[in-house]
Amino acid sequence: MNGIYFNPWNQLYKQPFGATAVNQVVHFQIQVTITQVSQVYLVIHKDFGETQRVLLQKKDADFYAEVYKLDKGKGLYFYHFEIQMNDSSEPVYYGSHQGGEGRIEKHREKLWEFQLTCYETEDPIVPWYRQAVFYQIFPDRFFNGNENDKVNQPKKNSFLYATKADEPMYIKDAAGEILRWDFYGGNLKGIEDKIPYLKKLGVNALYLNPIFEAASNHRYDTADYLVIDPVLGTLADFEKLVATLKAQGMYLMLDGVFSHVGQNSRYFNRDGSYGKNRGAYQNPQSPYFSWFQFFEYPQRYQSWWGIADLPTIDKLNPTFQQFIYGGQQSVIDQWTSRGVDAWRLDVADELPEIFIEGIRQKLDQYTDKVLIGEVWEDASNKISYQQRRQYILGGRLQGVMNYPLRDGILSLLNHVNSTEEVARMLTTLIENYPKFILYSNLNNLGTHDTERIFSMLNQDVKKFDLAFGLLFFFIGVPCIYYGDEAGLTGGKDPENRKFFPWKEQNITLFTICQKWIALRKTSEVLIEGEIHLFYNLGLFGIARTLGSVYQALVVNPLDSSYQITEPLSFTTSPVSVAKAINRQLENVKLEGLSYHILEGQV
Amino acid sequence: MNGIYFNPWNQLYKQPFGATAVNQVVHFQIQVTITQVSQVYLVIHKDFGETQRVLLQKKDADFYAEVYKLDKGKGLYFYHFEIQMNDSSEPVYYGSHQGGEGRIEKHREKLWEFQLTCYETEDPIVPWYRQAVFYQIFPDRFFNGNENDKVNQPKKNSFLYATKADEPMYIKDAAGEILRWDFYGGNLKGIEDKIPYLKKLGVNALYLNPIFEAASNHRYDTADYLVIDPVLGTLADFEKLVATLKAQGMYLMLDGVFSHVGQNSRYFNRDGSYGKNRGAYQNPQSPYFSWFQFFEYPQRYQSWWGIADLPTIDKLNPTFQQFIYGGQQSVIDQWTSRGVDAWRLDVADELPEIFIEGIRQKLDQYTDKVLIGEVWEDASNKISYQQRRQYILGGRLQGVMNYPLRDGILSLLNHVNSTEEVARMLTTLIENYPKFILYSNLNNLGTHDTERIFSMLNQDVKKFDLAFGLLFFFIGVPCIYYGDEAGLTGGKDPENRKFFPWKEQNITLFTICQKWIALRKTSEVLIEGEIHLFYNLGLFGIARTLGSVYQALVVNPLDSSYQITEPLSFTTSPVSVAKAINRQLENVKLEGLSYHILEGQV
Repeated sequence: MNGIYFNPWNQLYKQPFGATAVNQVVHFQIQVTITQVSQVYLVIHKDFGETQRVLLQKKDADFYAEVYKLDKGKGLYFYHFEIQMNDSSEPVYYGSHQGGEGRIEKHREKLWEFQLTCYETEDPIVPWYRQAVFYQIFPDRFFNGNENDKVNQPKKNSFLYATKADEPMYIKDAAGEILRWDFYGGNLKGIEDKIPYLKKLGVNALYLNPIFEAASNHRYDTADYLVIDPVLGTLADFEKLVATLKAQGMYLMLDGVFSHVGQNSRYFNRDGSYGKNRGAYQNPQSPYFSWFQFFEYPQRYQSWWGIADLPTIDKLNPTFQQFIYGGQQSVIDQWTSRGVDAWRLDVADELPEIFIEGIRQKLDQYTDKVLIGEVWEDASNKISYQQRRQYILGGRLQGVMNYPLRDGILSLLNHVNSTEEVARMLTTLIENYPKFILYSNLNNLGTHDTERIFSMLNQDVKKFDLAFGLLFFFIGVPCIYYGDEAGLTGGKDPENRKFFPWKEQNITLFTICQKWIALRKTSEVLIEGEIHLFYNLGLFGIARTLGSVYQALVVNPLDSSYQITEPLSFTTSPVSVAKAINRQLENVKLEGLSYHILEGQV
Repeated sequence: MNGIYFNPWNQLYKQPFGATAVNQVVHFQIQVTITQVSQVYLVIHKDFGETQRVLLQKKDADFYAEVYKLDKGKGLYFYHFEIQMNDSSEPVYYGSHQGGEGRIEKHREKLWEFQLTCYETEDPIVPWYRQAVFYQIFPDRFFNGNENDKVNQPKKNSFLYATKADEPMYIKDAAGEILRWDFYGGNLKGIEDKIPYLKKLGVNALYLNPIFEAASNHRYDTADYLVIDPVLGTLADFEKLVATLKAQGMYLMLDGVFSHVGQNSRYFNRDGSYGKNRGAYQNPQSPYFSWFQFFEYPQRYQSWWGIADLPTIDKLNPTFQQFIYGGQQSVIDQWTSRGVDAWRLDVADELPEIFIEGIRQKLDQYTDKVLIGEVWEDASNKISYQQRRQYILGGRLQGVMNYPLRDGILSLLNHVNSTEEVARMLTTLIENYPKFILYSNLNNLGTHDTERIFSMLNQDVKKFDLAFGLLFFFIGVPCIYYGDEAGLTGGKDPENRKFFPWKEQNITLFTICQKWIALRKTSEVLIEGEIHLFYNLGLFGIARTLGSVYQALVVNPLDSSYQITEPLSFTTSPVSVAKAINRQLENVKLEGLSYHILEGQV
């Protein structure tokens, strides 16, 4: 212990665990067993705020403790400890290390702070969402519901893949610009037709990549927010899909892409396809002109990542805000009133807080709607455009896409990180996120933006099984990327966007997914329970606890079998559960790449 | 007249006109009115042969004459005249200039020879062919005969155009290599379905670009000579098309591509798609191994224009010859016996004479079959691979594609050359080609390898009318490239391969084509007549004569009207016809870009 010890994951040292509501009191206690100590301080500051030095009171057994009230408002609080010496030598510091227990640091400038997330309000539970199992569909690539695979209203000067088994590719010129868009012709009717398949798999909610009119196959270049892309079908097709989903007790999440639009959209209208002089590019008197920022009219304008095809919208523009979430005819209203249950905000980091809040308030006018955001990192401490994001502190996003979970699972199963390192990485996430966010994160093993999980696992079926087991045991809402359960492989875009292999599905993988989905759907503890991670040198586990009940998954990520000879360590401190689990695991042997499920009551 | 005059286009100076059969006697006569002449020689040599000096006999009115027998065999004879002086000064020469009359040349090395084509045998007339009006179809781009435009058996990893109005494009990588082939999905059933349309237009013979199995949309990369490309249809579809054509009194010409094959053909089989170790690339024991020339097995091999995709075949290989035209199961046999009426040999210049002769002999076992070749220049004096080609001297090709005619018509209508220059260029062709070839050339205004004629004429409807008039008045078999009559535009490949615009046909152009086709079909003189060209400063004309009957077209290629005030000149010497035509044209005024048709009897 080196004489000083503090661990925010252990209730002896910090209470409550993890993210805490504003104006709540947090108990800190640090143990300092070295001699010559004069005073111990909790040094804490609100993110970008003034530093406070809280003198800790000495308790029994060399503990120093104090309470601290989170009265500086929501946001992040960062803290460390300063130990002053009797002999007027330089003070010693104690800061964060790799999650959980920290370490002594003699140089102030090398110190890492502990993070304490303070949220504003606890978002109410949306029961259907918390219980859901999602299935993400890239609509062009799932199923064509027409006879003879006829493509609805193909776009002029685009290409159709000749066979569904064709490898996706971009058609680019030598400079890398897209020359024409490529389509397989999947459509809304196709999704509706495959609802029995989805039911059989066990999912009960769909997340659709964008479906509004656009030029590309991915449709992140919106052309018209109020029109279903004709290639995907009609408004009637959409309404029929929604009705069928509702009838089957299923839910629908759409992709809201509000950061930018397509250059040939109704709004920017560069090529005039929405009428001469109607859009911003062709007419400074256009009602959409103020949505865009032109450096030099009309040729040079702000665009997403400098891609001229995607002019950026000024999300602070009042008419745009009104259009998206203002009146009863707003984009969010028009689609939500037609039965959309949830929205996923594309590139949430590009959206101002007020804009996200506006959408959330609009959705709160309905019942049980959900708003989540695309964030790739730990969303609790994300900085974008020199601003700390506050979208998961209540009243804005209800959850985010959980790419760090995917990273953790992959690094565990591919032996990039040790079991302990993975446990620390994921416990840090659990610590940093407000609990209501954790329960509402959309947990993915892969999306349209990542390599296929089966490929990342070297097409190892056992690893695939473990990965999905971990996904379904983790806290949050699991989401399967279409075709992962059918054996689709591939690297990043476009390889991860192959057409669903209806004629050569991998039944083994399907059965694996079906198994984990079924387990979660019948387990209240997997849906509602707290989460605790544990590990030893060879194994990694996730325990979920609900009251006195627990359910746990232990996986052996190595190829060789592992004989348990000593208790596994829990990163957090559910003492009785830890004891019970370790008792059950005594002398258990796990074969290589196998798992073990424990259930019990304490 | 500068004292010396000779003109092979005028019967006073040379008889007979033009190409002459072997062992025939040719009369030469030159007029030399300068003084001090001692002797005049005809200096003549067979192509690459020894020079003969024939002393000419002096006749009345300063004419010097002699006969010469073409007894050195078929081929080209080149000649000029040498005029020796009494005063032992340097001789003076008289050679060719720009067609027709020649010019005096003082320096031997600057002399251009007159050409005399000597053919072996006069190929018999194939009546249906001489009377035909062809229509060239690029099969992927004409019509899809399936319901809902379903594409037959699309090729894996190829692209389909989303709409028939899409602009064709190549899908290439940065290095310019084709990444995937692009298809519209036209097929044989589509051609059959459109026979009523073709009948209405008036054509009665089809020339189809390749239809055998291949990877590309143009199918010049044959994969299997004995299989109809599945995208185009089945053997049954082919047989049905042939049967329907026959029933309608129509004829069919196929494209024979024997110079090279596709790298993934059954024969080369680079990717093994025709069975492991079956083809030359994968197995030196393959029966096809000897068809190819490997520099370094198997990676480096002879290929067409260095395109690795198209390995060249050794056409002198006996097993290949046997395969193409040898036994009863040969490629030529299999398709000809199924009703193919004619073959067009792709890149005829790449085919050895013996190979062409072998195909011709095979076809001669049938009745009324035709063999023509793709040649871009004047085929009479073409040299390829250091050899003078002899394919139009009888017993080999019956005709060639007539690109020089297209060049002449375009340079006339686009004012690149004067009326006189065009008349000389085309009369040179008429002079150089054996007459039986002239009647059997396939005359095109455009093909899959050239810009669209309508585009080349700046989409001027009047010029289009004149161009087709000239095409149909010229000697030979006219051929319309699909869609020219419907208004298709575009530059070279791929723009010249758009899909037929069934939904927006240019009716004006259709009517123009229909008019000229009808005129030719009802005019024996246009089919069987001799040809004579005439011109003045502003006008250009084609006269056709059959016995005492003539029919002539005079066009005014300029924008402004032209009032005829003096007789037009004929490049050749049909004296009575010239008189009759000039009498009819006296004081006639032609509006800009108009034409005038004359008929009469002398």
